[in-house]
Amino acid sequence: MTDLSALLAPRSIAVIGAANDLSIIRGRTLKVMRGHAYAGRIYPVSRSQAEVQGLKAYSSVDALPERVDMALLIIPAEFVLEELERCGRAGIKAALIITSGFAEQRGSEGAELQRRLREIAARFDMLVCGPNTEGFTNTAAALCATFSPTVDGLAVPLLPPARTDGRVAVIGQSGGMGFAFFDRGRPKDIPFSYIITTGNEACLEVFDFVDYLLDEGSTDVFLLFLENIKNAETFKRAADKALRLGKPIIVTKIGHSEVGQRAAASHTAALAGSYDAYRAMFRHYGIVEGADIEAMVDLAAAFSFYRQRLPASKRVGIGTASGGGGGWMADACIEAGLEVPTLDDATRKVIDAHLPAYGTSQNPVDGTAQAIRQIGYSELARLIALSERVDSVVMVTSTRSAEPFEREHENLRRVSQTSTKPIFMWSYTNPCAAAVRILSETGYPLFTNMNSCVRAIAALAEYRNCRERLISHRQTFQPDTARVHRVRRALHAPVLCEYQLASVLSEYGIAPIESQLTKNVDEAVAIAQAWRAPVAFKVQSPDILHKTDVGAVALNLADSDTIHRAYAELIDNVKQYAPSANVHGVLVQRMAPSGIEIIVGIRRDELFGPLLMVGLGGVYVETLRDFVLSPVPLAAVDAGQLIDGLRGRSLLDGLRGAPASDIPALIDLLVSLSELAAEHGDVIDEFELNPVIVHEAGQGVSVVDALAMLRVSE
Amino acid sequence: MTDLSALLAPRSIAVIGAANDLSIIRGRTLKVMRGHAYAGRIYPVSRSQAEVQGLKAYSSVDALPERVDMALLIIPAEFVLEELERCGRAGIKAALIITSGFAEQRGSEGAELQRRLREIAARFDMLVCGPNTEGFTNTAAALCATFSPTVDGLAVPLLPPARTDGRVAVIGQSGGMGFAFFDRGRPKDIPFSYIITTGNEACLEVFDFVDYLLDEGSTDVFLLFLENIKNAETFKRAADKALRLGKPIIVTKIGHSEVGQRAAASHTAALAGSYDAYRAMFRHYGIVEGADIEAMVDLAAAFSFYRQRLPASKRVGIGTASGGGGGWMADACIEAGLEVPTLDDATRKVIDAHLPAYGTSQNPVDGTAQAIRQIGYSELARLIALSERVDSVVMVTSTRSAEPFEREHENLRRVSQTSTKPIFMWSYTNPCAAAVRILSETGYPLFTNMNSCVRAIAALAEYRNCRERLISHRQTFQPDTARVHRVRRALHAPVLCEYQLASVLSEYGIAPIESQLTKNVDEAVAIAQAWRAPVAFKVQSPDILHKTDVGAVALNLADSDTIHRAYAELIDNVKQYAPSANVHGVLVQRMAPSGIEIIVGIRRDELFGPLLMVGLGGVYVETLRDFVLSPVPLAAVDAGQLIDGLRGRSLLDGLRGAPASDIPALIDLLVSLSELAAEHGDVIDEFELNPVIVHEAGQGVSVVDALAMLRVSE
Repeated sequence: MTDLSALLAPRSIAVIGAANDLSIIRGRTLKVMRGHAYAGRIYPVSRSQAEVQGLKAYSSVDALPERVDMALLIIPAEFVLEELERCGRAGIKAALIITSGFAEQRGSEGAELQRRLREIAARFDMLVCGPNTEGFTNTAAALCATFSPTVDGLAVPLLPPARTDGRVAVIGQSGGMGFAFFDRGRPKDIPFSYIITTGNEACLEVFDFVDYLLDEGSTDVFLLFLENIKNAETFKRAADKALRLGKPIIVTKIGHSEVGQRAAASHTAALAGSYDAYRAMFRHYGIVEGADIEAMVDLAAAFSFYRQRLPASKRVGIGTASGGGGGWMADACIEAGLEVPTLDDATRKVIDAHLPAYGTSQNPVDGTAQAIRQIGYSELARLIALSERVDSVVMVTSTRSAEPFEREHENLRRVSQTSTKPIFMWSYTNPCAAAVRILSETGYPLFTNMNSCVRAIAALAEYRNCRERLISHRQTFQPDTARVHRVRRALHAPVLCEYQLASVLSEYGIAPIESQLTKNVDEAVAIAQAWRAPVAFKVQSPDILHKTDVGAVALNLADSDTIHRAYAELIDNVKQYAPSANVHGVLVQRMAPSGIEIIVGIRRDELFGPLLMVGLGGVYVETLRDFVLSPVPLAAVDAGQLIDGLRGRSLLDGLRGAPASDIPALIDLLVSLSELAAEHGDVIDEFELNPVIVHEAGQGVSVVDALAMLRVSE
Repeated sequence: MTDLSALLAPRSIAVIGAANDLSIIRGRTLKVMRGHAYAGRIYPVSRSQAEVQGLKAYSSVDALPERVDMALLIIPAEFVLEELERCGRAGIKAALIITSGFAEQRGSEGAELQRRLREIAARFDMLVCGPNTEGFTNTAAALCATFSPTVDGLAVPLLPPARTDGRVAVIGQSGGMGFAFFDRGRPKDIPFSYIITTGNEACLEVFDFVDYLLDEGSTDVFLLFLENIKNAETFKRAADKALRLGKPIIVTKIGHSEVGQRAAASHTAALAGSYDAYRAMFRHYGIVEGADIEAMVDLAAAFSFYRQRLPASKRVGIGTASGGGGGWMADACIEAGLEVPTLDDATRKVIDAHLPAYGTSQNPVDGTAQAIRQIGYSELARLIALSERVDSVVMVTSTRSAEPFEREHENLRRVSQTSTKPIFMWSYTNPCAAAVRILSETGYPLFTNMNSCVRAIAALAEYRNCRERLISHRQTFQPDTARVHRVRRALHAPVLCEYQLASVLSEYGIAPIESQLTKNVDEAVAIAQAWRAPVAFKVQSPDILHKTDVGAVALNLADSDTIHRAYAELIDNVKQYAPSANVHGVLVQRMAPSGIEIIVGIRRDELFGPLLMVGLGGVYVETLRDFVLSPVPLAAVDAGQLIDGLRGRSLLDGLRGAPASDIPALIDLLVSLSELAAEHGDVIDEFELNPVIVHEAGQGVSVVDALAMLRVSE
């Protein structure tokens, strides 16, 4: 962890390029800074003015009365390098470079400027944020080193007086979006610790800031806006640390789509990394994705209040005064993957005592306007939370007027202080500011968007689950060096066929189905007859990657005639469709018993390296892209979770009376293959077991084909 | 269409049960009514008071100075029947019954009260809304016949002064949700014509109101909240009329999930209807579903502005001053099924003239803060809209301050008046009221939720497409009475097997694959040998619905030995697993050539009657529930659209070099089967062709199995 305090909490700042004209960024930045109660010293540096906005200005950083902690640069791009060098020589240890005109420009000139900027920063060991950033805000220090209008002339303090706990740091590669989170979240009384926008990230990246703030102490929740991650190792280290500390990370990663990637087209030399890979990494580290600004802000609110009171599972109790609102909320819960169980009889009895004849306590609990008026939202929530069948409660409310909440002010506080389960408030009407304040003061997050409310509840439960898996089950993986050595010798060619991979797989405890390589038809017939079972023939050639396409596979061969005919056909097909292929022989393989077809493999991601892939097999699923990825190696408990992420997961449970599949055997296979990936990911481009047939419970799996593409020269 | 003006636009109203106490509904309702400039006459009717809230009160409706148009009842449930009867006798033609305590109560007493209420209404031919409703608002008449706090003491007029066109009627079965749409939409300057909450719908239902308002003239867009539809015919008539008139219907239907159904558990005798069936009906009539209040309100805003300027297709141009915001918006567009094409060179050249070096015109067009400041959002939008590659434009804006919008006020108006393409504004910051007003005045919908903005754009394009299909292609279906008669005779038993359905299907031009029913093995062998092709055997018995489960099917039988063996096995299996089955024989069937497996069928929905079903076949897809439903009969153009709704649709286009499938033949089959459904839906419970094999283009389809379950006695 690099100490970033000189940059983020400087005691003194030189504003290089500060101007009087408030219509330009050079003027606005100083104005915004001075509009807050920052206790440090601010020195305008100007080549032309002796005074800027009423402050004495200095002609150069060399002329300052002290060595400042941080220099803020808003001069034109062509002067930035010499000025940064001057700062370096003056012993200034941190710089915030707001100036645009670097790698984000069309053409190579800006990129070259940025490269030289990075060199200077390295030479003087300076902490540099930017260039092309909108700056940052440190709320505790009342420092707004930014020109963002969202923190200019605020009608409210940067931090909501009611909230001292659960602080949220925004760190974004986009200035507009980064400060938008603050703008949208502040009226909801979210306590922001920092808003940091990182711009082109010539030096410091988003996860450098995460890493620092995890230790710095004033941040409990992270809200990130990412176009890309430049350094996978920094990311992994910070993400792992955050999960261990229980400080949730909420992220928007743009560039999912080809068009989004075009828009976010990386100015820097960042590796693209597929969005599938990003999602796999996010899932692994319990990082929550938000789909839009509301979703991000609502996730932040939920974690801000309840990161230490996460729901134990996905069972929700719903309380409402509006029958329609309760039913709608129930649908939304189910669609978000939550459960809405009927409450137990004992709890219902307690609740029923408060309900009129047209109310209902089953869940949703329709308290009716009458009961809510009598006992209040908080009391109804408390009663619902008593049920052991639910882990959280969501209340359907109207916060249009503060009056009902004023009436139950004390009980709201009492319930939030004593409840062991999180209670969420959704308002179907526009909240009035006074109601927001009461709920925030007494300890409840208030949502206006129903779907982002329920997704937040689901995210809290998933985060808890992920964290528990991490803490109890993930162990540091120790490569087996002798095995690494043996296997590496076997991974000797750019393409390895099924028969060549048997020994590799067996090193990891994976036994492919019984097979034998043959060179002529008589050998093949002899083997098939000795086995007394139907066989498959597969031509083995590093030049034939898609065997079916050229007719290089024959299945279900039983009698001698069929076998002879099939063998001849295979050889003919290869001669015709792949005449130049180097054929190693024909693999005779025992036909596998029936089961569910799965694809398992290893894929290399440009940014994150080797990832394990598991998907349902078959052509339908290829269309539907039903697969999931995971970093490697994989613990058994994570492998189970990974399989649960398949949309067609229920197929493995047995459909229409079909037997359930051998999930433990599949998990073993995934764990084993993930170890292969961990030990040899550096040379594997692709490794595919396709298909793997998962048999019924207790019967294991059959690995029926294998292919590897490696980064090795022959 | 029933004239509802006496109810919705009465010239005079008796408020029966009006009280002075403003803490109770009886007092609040009168107070809310009198808080608006309603020009009609209001007569409090009270048994105990001579004056209520300063108005002279009457002891009974019989004592009123005139025969009022409408009676509003807020007296306790036990008095409602006699009072309604008195109103009827007094010649009052409309009643709004706010009183609760009817069918929504636990127990049978309330339901019985409601039944009798309906009788009285019928006897006097009265228009009755309710009971258990929160009332309604008619904004043009400034009539708020409701106790809803959302229209009490408003700081703004009911109708936004800037908007006279594109009025939105809310009609909801839930009072809380109905008025919530108003509460959330009014600050966005949405012009509401009516907010009507229908309560228990003892008499008038949501679609009765839709039907009336379609003709009444002050409504252009409908926003509905439904727990259920009680009368399918009313729904179909109104929905069809709305689509023909181009007045969009936006709906929330709750009770998707089992839990949601439990919550919405129908008080009345409404048929449940499956959510799948609701969705099919909605799709057929171009009815748009909204997922939450924001989505509903945003759809209403989009249609309110642009129902007469719908985008021709899904190609969107994006303009932005925030690179991050533009990229995020691009992702959101793609995820909503929109396209974001690169702009053409000519348009880019025009735009580039305004951009600094760090802007980009490809799409998203990153105008940069600098260009936006110079030419304004509206001008950039206009330039983007010039491209023939886009059908709509979405601008990523900050509306935190009104100042930039004030500067371009005139051009905003000019562009909205001259643009032939809809332009949408998304604000990533919290909008200020002044900016909302300027945009609303000058003709732009403003969104704060990115996802509901892009879903609204997609919904507009889909609505236009659906409407064009309706107007150009849907014809009234005329049943063929002679055919109906012939086929009805063939549908004679509760279960009909494949061999019994051949003649039925051929009446609709559907030719099942060649088959012959046999009674013994020799016949079967003889047929197979005569065909010189592999065959399948299928036991035909109305008692064996799932043939595979009892081993009553054998496939791919080629030589005489295999055929003999298979026949014997089938008979054995049936003897063992279905000993009491009445076996009609064994069907010998030619094996179909290969292709994509599809399931096609007819299902009966409790509420909507027969629906056509099409889904991808195979076990994976069963897990993934990839099927769609449609009302019948189905036009060819709708059948194509229906197939496009399958998630695995691309499978039919040919994957990895596989040939494309014969979609026209599949469409023919769907249309034909839909006519069977239309003509015999009254007796069909289920009719399944499973599988149908779709061959490659030009090769048609093979119907490989058929089964019918009918509502007939033997």
